[in-house]
Amino acid sequence: MFPNVLEVARKLIRERVQAGETVVDATMGNGNDTLFLAQLVQEEGKVIAFDIQPQAIEKTRERLEREGLANRVEMKLASHEEIDKLEISAAAIMFNLGYLPGGDKEITTQASSTIQAIQSGLRVLRPGGIMTVMIYWGHPAGETEKEAVEAFCHELSQLDYLVLKYQYINQQNQAPFLLAIERRGQ
Amino acid sequence: MFPNVLEVARKLIRERVQAGETVVDATMGNGNDTLFLAQLVQEEGKVIAFDIQPQAIEKTRERLEREGLANRVEMKLASHEEIDKLEISAAAIMFNLGYLPGGDKEITTQASSTIQAIQSGLRVLRPGGIMTVMIYWGHPAGETEKEAVEAFCHELSQLDYLVLKYQYINQQNQAPFLLAIERRGQ
Repeated sequence: MFPNVLEVARKLIRERVQAGETVVDATMGNGNDTLFLAQLVQEEGKVIAFDIQPQAIEKTRERLEREGLANRVEMKLASHEEIDKLEISAAAIMFNLGYLPGGDKEITTQASSTIQAIQSGLRVLRPGGIMTVMIYWGHPAGETEKEAVEAFCHELSQLDYLVLKYQYINQQNQAPFLLAIERRGQ
Repeated sequence: MFPNVLEVARKLIRERVQAGETVVDATMGNGNDTLFLAQLVQEEGKVIAFDIQPQAIEKTRERLEREGLANRVEMKLASHEEIDKLEISAAAIMFNLGYLPGGDKEITTQASSTIQAIQSGLRVLRPGGIMTVMIYWGHPAGETEKEAVEAFCHELSQLDYLVLKYQYINQQNQAPFLLAIERRGQ
């Protein structure tokens, strides 16, 4: 069976990230990706995780502590547009666009700040690194955001990036799909 | 680096086809996929390959004979709309939509017969089997055909099939992309 799109994103990241590297979870949410990334980079690596909701930070901290992974993760109560203020070279950056599952559905990522955040992330992505953007667009602002992000990706220079769109197209209910941006070079 | 779309198609097929199975090359062309499939099914397997151009049959036969693989392949000078006249259970079916590379660019696959052929192929695809459709749409009838095939795939029941669209979206020159249809069940 074809894997689900989240598994595809994780596989693409696993294939590119080395233990000890720095990676970014741009949308912490319930901490699922933060946990995945913390395991991946191992003890000498670092995850920097962003969210603007204190609830996300608390939930994620609890989960990380339970797993003994908290010391690998730096949590930031800040907008992911600020990724490029970090002096890092990131091997991978993960985005989940939409709302916090189980949280307030009125609080969603928005097209304009999402594009800013993606641009900001690309500035710190190392050559050969990857940014994955999971697009959950089954919410009121979702379609606009989806179109803006796709349009932005279409225009990325093929000399510098390769953008994969991975989507199951016969699904109902606006199933999520994946955009994965690989920065060329080694 | 992300693999090219043809490599992705072949990987999906490799993961699903067992030695000894029957598979179909719906668009023989220069025989690249026929050769790949003949190696994959091994000595006890069978490839059935279609083309309406005698030139394709000749070229492919030569290549197969050179590789000692001709006895695994049944070549049919016929339209791929006739796939379902075969009494087979196919593990994989490959389509390349467009024209024969190096051949007459006026002779291309066409939307209506392509849809017929895909439907015909799905009727003999075994549960757990896969159909890959590479869409080369950089020719005059290509855009119409692409849209028709995508629309057809969108409507396939998600109870019976899962349809993956795999595309690099920041490429110029109408780069080819892949549709892969997996039939559910084992």
